Amino acid sequence: MLKIIKPTFLVNERVARKNIQTMAQKATQSGVRFRPHFKTHFSATIGQWFKDEGVQCITVSSIDMAKYFASNGWNDITIAFPANICQIEDLNTLAREVSLNLVIESQQTLEYLMTHMESPVHIFVKIDTGYGRTGIPAEHLQTIKSLIEATDAPLQFRGLLAHFGHSYKERDKSKIQDIHRREVQKLVELKNQLEWSEMEISIGDTPSCSLVDSFDFVNEVRPGNFVFYDMMQVQIGSCSPDQISVCMACPIVAIHPERQEVIIHGGAVHFSKDFIVDEKGRTSYGHVAVMGEDGWGIPEPEVYLRSLSQEHGIVSAPIGYIEQLNVGDILYILPIHSCLTANLMKDYYTLEGKKILTMNSI
Amino acid sequence: MLKIIKPTFLVNERVARKNIQTMAQKATQSGVRFRPHFKTHFSATIGQWFKDEGVQCITVSSIDMAKYFASNGWNDITIAFPANICQIEDLNTLAREVSLNLVIESQQTLEYLMTHMESPVHIFVKIDTGYGRTGIPAEHLQTIKSLIEATDAPLQFRGLLAHFGHSYKERDKSKIQDIHRREVQKLVELKNQLEWSEMEISIGDTPSCSLVDSFDFVNEVRPGNFVFYDMMQVQIGSCSPDQISVCMACPIVAIHPERQEVIIHGGAVHFSKDFIVDEKGRTSYGHVAVMGEDGWGIPEPEVYLRSLSQEHGIVSAPIGYIEQLNVGDILYILPIHSCLTANLMKDYYTLEGKKILTMNSI
Repeated sequence: MLKIIKPTFLVNERVARKNIQTMAQKATQSGVRFRPHFKTHFSATIGQWFKDEGVQCITVSSIDMAKYFASNGWNDITIAFPANICQIEDLNTLAREVSLNLVIESQQTLEYLMTHMESPVHIFVKIDTGYGRTGIPAEHLQTIKSLIEATDAPLQFRGLLAHFGHSYKERDKSKIQDIHRREVQKLVELKNQLEWSEMEISIGDTPSCSLVDSFDFVNEVRPGNFVFYDMMQVQIGSCSPDQISVCMACPIVAIHPERQEVIIHGGAVHFSKDFIVDEKGRTSYGHVAVMGEDGWGIPEPEVYLRSLSQEHGIVSAPIGYIEQLNVGDILYILPIHSCLTANLMKDYYTLEGKKILTMNSI
Repeated sequence: MLKIIKPTFLVNERVARKNIQTMAQKATQSGVRFRPHFKTHFSATIGQWFKDEGVQCITVSSIDMAKYFASNGWNDITIAFPANICQIEDLNTLAREVSLNLVIESQQTLEYLMTHMESPVHIFVKIDTGYGRTGIPAEHLQTIKSLIEATDAPLQFRGLLAHFGHSYKERDKSKIQDIHRREVQKLVELKNQLEWSEMEISIGDTPSCSLVDSFDFVNEVRPGNFVFYDMMQVQIGSCSPDQISVCMACPIVAIHPERQEVIIHGGAVHFSKDFIVDEKGRTSYGHVAVMGEDGWGIPEPEVYLRSLSQEHGIVSAPIGYIEQLNVGDILYILPIHSCLTANLMKDYYTLEGKKILTMNSI
């Protein structure tokens, strides 16, 4: 195994590939296109693991991320973010090179793109089915219709795109399945009302995509986080801890048995400051895992990252656990939000010590 | 001025240089060494601005950061973090190249370093005067004494080092001054009790270093954040908004007047998820500033970043403000915690469009 000397982001390739396979199979069995969101891993290497499962088209969250994956051989890309007209030159470069899908929600952006895009692009209209972040509310039929009808060359309307982000707020499987069913239903009704011949429905969030048995009434799914999962997804109920394919390995630099605390090198610049509040009301920035020969397993009971400074992490642990530790030992910590941790860590390593390059690699 | 097309971290060089000058002058007038913490800016370019004010020795928070600044001409470096013995090879390389000060708080680390360091290094013993993160509690005289007495070649004991991190929790100038006075007093008493001939006292946190009039009874100060400041420091009372030398410039990608919200490209991967709770109980991840010819000025009343996703930011604003905005306009946002935002943004730009390279530059 890899020798750890400083905060290191580890990927268990076997578990990550299994996560990809599970989601890819569910999409295939449902007869829908699998367009995974690559904003979780940012990595051409991990992109290849998706290709190995037959994935051909992807989702990204920024124009720069689209450029990175386009330069790594991906040629069917959806930027699932309201099109940023300030980067029109980059959009034109991308549209020349790959099959590009953009997301819009306003006449202003539509008109700008129609007059400034130089190559054909497909347009998804972003629909807000209840999350309340971006998109046109699903019930605003006339606004949506006007936008679709106004779409003209070089843009071509392709369909409706939604993100059920409010699934992240639930902690109950049946409630998340309900959100999925209800919001898909809204999109189907909208599609019927719009009476457009060819119109796709694109959805995707890790909680609901993990918890429904099949993807019905939609054309494509775009989950992202599931490749890594994390402790937030465990809390939501989207996965079990043994499905988490990443962890942070951090050296112990100080031990304070009198406070039942261990100080690690591993802080906000490694983990991010995203946190969960556990069932006992405690804030956690990560959870220490039991480490075995074959990777990490279940979380250690009551051993968690209770506080983060810029480079320091304070791990709270029972005295019996702390007594086994020495300065220089490594703790393996399951992140709260793997997307943000991965973004901060830039390079990753497999358990076998293979370096995984990302768009943030220096 | 620089043309902004995507989330961009701007530094107002004039304001940053003024912040450096103010702190450097206070140190000079107090007759203490100024050893600024470079964990805020991570930048060789900005390091040069410190050199221009006569700064010759620096503080960093990791061995990798020490390596970066050593390779950029800095040769007197304190790593103000419990020495990570897992990186002993890097420590030996550094100790050969520069005058290195390490921080320890345990016999275990001390013994490891004494047997594994190949070149002389100075040792500071980390003292906890009340913050409760790292260090030996100031009242544990015997533990501290044993550690100092056990220190032997190639290590050389240099002094006591403390960080009054609990000053960040206060919101009142006189209370922060009280913390400073009280904790310095503890260190002076400890020094007297230890009866060691040559012993330095090193302290440093931006709130108290900003708010005391002079640095008494100490040998050096190590504040870091003051070069940029941020909205958290405004809330603490360490600075006024016009002393903030950095801001995030973010394009507007969608406008929702019905919710009094604006969506920007600028999310958790740009700002970090650090936040403050304002006097009205609202969570803020940044505050939109009024932009003038010469940089940003005071915050716009009631226009703040209320929520962050990975790449999206939701800005809350009064309707009168929103009505003046268009998709593609740029908002200038004062960060909550400039150190974390700077770390995420990798490259910075001056208002004049000059690129500032950092240790995270790709």
